[in-house]
Amino acid sequence: MTGNLHADRIARLQATLHRKQIDALLVSQPHNRRYLSGYTAPDHSIQESSGFLLIPGEGQPFLLTDSRFTLQAEAEAPLYQVELYTKGLMRLLGRLQKKIAFRTLAFESDYFLHSAFLYLADHCAKNELILRPSRGLIEQMRLLKDEHELRLLRQSTALNEKVFQSVYQTIEPGMTEREIALAIDLTMREMGAEGPSFDTIVAFGANAARPHAVPTDRELQVGDLVMIDMGLILRGYCSDLTRTFVFGKPDQTYIDRHRLVRQAMLAGIGAIRAGVTGAAVDQAARRVLADGGYAFGHGLGHGVGIAVHEEPRLSPRWRKQLRAGMVVTVEPGLYLADWGGIRLENMVVVTEQGGEILNRDTTGLDL
Amino acid sequence: MTGNLHADRIARLQATLHRKQIDALLVSQPHNRRYLSGYTAPDHSIQESSGFLLIPGEGQPFLLTDSRFTLQAEAEAPLYQVELYTKGLMRLLGRLQKKIAFRTLAFESDYFLHSAFLYLADHCAKNELILRPSRGLIEQMRLLKDEHELRLLRQSTALNEKVFQSVYQTIEPGMTEREIALAIDLTMREMGAEGPSFDTIVAFGANAARPHAVPTDRELQVGDLVMIDMGLILRGYCSDLTRTFVFGKPDQTYIDRHRLVRQAMLAGIGAIRAGVTGAAVDQAARRVLADGGYAFGHGLGHGVGIAVHEEPRLSPRWRKQLRAGMVVTVEPGLYLADWGGIRLENMVVVTEQGGEILNRDTTGLDL
Repeated sequence: MTGNLHADRIARLQATLHRKQIDALLVSQPHNRRYLSGYTAPDHSIQESSGFLLIPGEGQPFLLTDSRFTLQAEAEAPLYQVELYTKGLMRLLGRLQKKIAFRTLAFESDYFLHSAFLYLADHCAKNELILRPSRGLIEQMRLLKDEHELRLLRQSTALNEKVFQSVYQTIEPGMTEREIALAIDLTMREMGAEGPSFDTIVAFGANAARPHAVPTDRELQVGDLVMIDMGLILRGYCSDLTRTFVFGKPDQTYIDRHRLVRQAMLAGIGAIRAGVTGAAVDQAARRVLADGGYAFGHGLGHGVGIAVHEEPRLSPRWRKQLRAGMVVTVEPGLYLADWGGIRLENMVVVTEQGGEILNRDTTGLDL
Repeated sequence: MTGNLHADRIARLQATLHRKQIDALLVSQPHNRRYLSGYTAPDHSIQESSGFLLIPGEGQPFLLTDSRFTLQAEAEAPLYQVELYTKGLMRLLGRLQKKIAFRTLAFESDYFLHSAFLYLADHCAKNELILRPSRGLIEQMRLLKDEHELRLLRQSTALNEKVFQSVYQTIEPGMTEREIALAIDLTMREMGAEGPSFDTIVAFGANAARPHAVPTDRELQVGDLVMIDMGLILRGYCSDLTRTFVFGKPDQTYIDRHRLVRQAMLAGIGAIRAGVTGAAVDQAARRVLADGGYAFGHGLGHGVGIAVHEEPRLSPRWRKQLRAGMVVTVEPGLYLADWGGIRLENMVVVTEQGGEILNRDTTGLDL
């Protein structure tokens, strides 16, 4: 099943390469690598790559890596021939050029350092290769999730909710934002996640007025507003969830504002459907908050998949249409500097009929 | 004090820019950014920068960022004028070009994406700017640690040892490699570290035969060999420590091999001194293991500072001389596929007189 999955993705990419007259594509972006091959080794940093794919226009693809990763590459990417660049990537490319005869080589401009490009350009000049920067070839494929991916995104979301519930039950006065964030990260791993998909946000009171709040040593008091924005990676797929609640009994102001944000969220989800623009969905939610007298400075949502932030965007500037199989977050927020903030976030699959929510509990108001 | 520190670093860099006829340098590498300014915001990824420095050949430098980081930038980098690229980096560069009149602009080729370079090259062509890739300008400065940095590296090392001791005392049969690694990461943060400086390695028995072992769910048994390789970041500076021991009573084979690795480590430390090559230090330790019938496939050590892996290298290929003020790890190892591995690692400052060990307990044999 997984084998067919990768074979199908490789074949679709090869059709694109053929159309674009690219003889071979060097894939350096770790998410793209994983998507096309199943190879999971992350890059330590862009300078310390754990490997490249070389996808020829036709025939068997290659996975280029070093001896630390040979076994893992062979086990995880059985469709690929694993080759080691013990004497450097350029040497290996030279050897492969003799094997599969390519004249036009493309590389991923969005995940390739300028200094590495200089080496590659030099190599190509010496070996009569035409070098072509390329952008978004695989990202375009990743936009639309297949059934296999949707299943994984559902599982990731379900586990993320389970972690939230588990930690939520342990929250006590005196715990700090940092302690709760740590407990979340720890519970994610204990429950089987690869790790968080982004830095966990836990913010009390006025700290929640910052959309990208960083957890501090502030201690929780009864009556505090609490915002938690968290996500995990499960079998390569990300989840992203925001819940806001009051620790203790919320006052009427809080309840009114929470309901308004929930209404905006539901309006956003209600506007989702294949063919509608990202800007229109953003507007549907933004209008509800504007009618209540509030504005938020970030987009309504973003695509989620192997990356936690990817296309499409639900934002005033994203004027392209949504397509069936896209998965997006919907996360309107309300922020008041001296008071705090409320954001609610769920994940939604775009279908021809409308938006299908991946979460079980969508609002968190009954918490 | 910290203000003078950054003013001094900026002045030294400006002297270099003057010598190289560079009118302004765009600094994108997060460690270089922090070193020159004190600004600590990390990049989420190379695509999601939290800011750039623009260092003119003379006069006040600029910190370019977006509104999320304004307050942090102003607080942490008081020597810099903070400018926001609300309408894009190129627009802001155009505005600053009018202000400080530069004609030659350099950028960090080793931390600049090819696609970003294309935008910058286009901007420069339209604005009569000469664009120059540069490499290693700030990394060269970071090679030699000043007193302030040595103090921070000592503190980072001391805390790392304290975390090791604390977790060591909780180790019990049945704990998994992953559980111990998690406890280490958690304790680091509890004790005030920013976080681990690399992925913590905990390996039992044969798993320790892999120098870059990844923690598994294997449970500890009495008599198991345990290798722990861990490091943390404290106020921006990294530590790196490896200890190997037997949980229970070591047999004579273990004791003999441990002593051999210790002897190799001490030989390596003993060979360190300003003016000696990295290769010579590597060789001094490697020879001891070779005499005992063992070889190891990695270098003896690496520089440590704001980055956990930086120049210099103690390796057969690093033929440059060590200089006073460099800080390196010394970490010989012995690996046997079916048995396990022993590696001991400490951090050492290079001085004119010799190597000065930053750790308190250097061998761990008495554990």
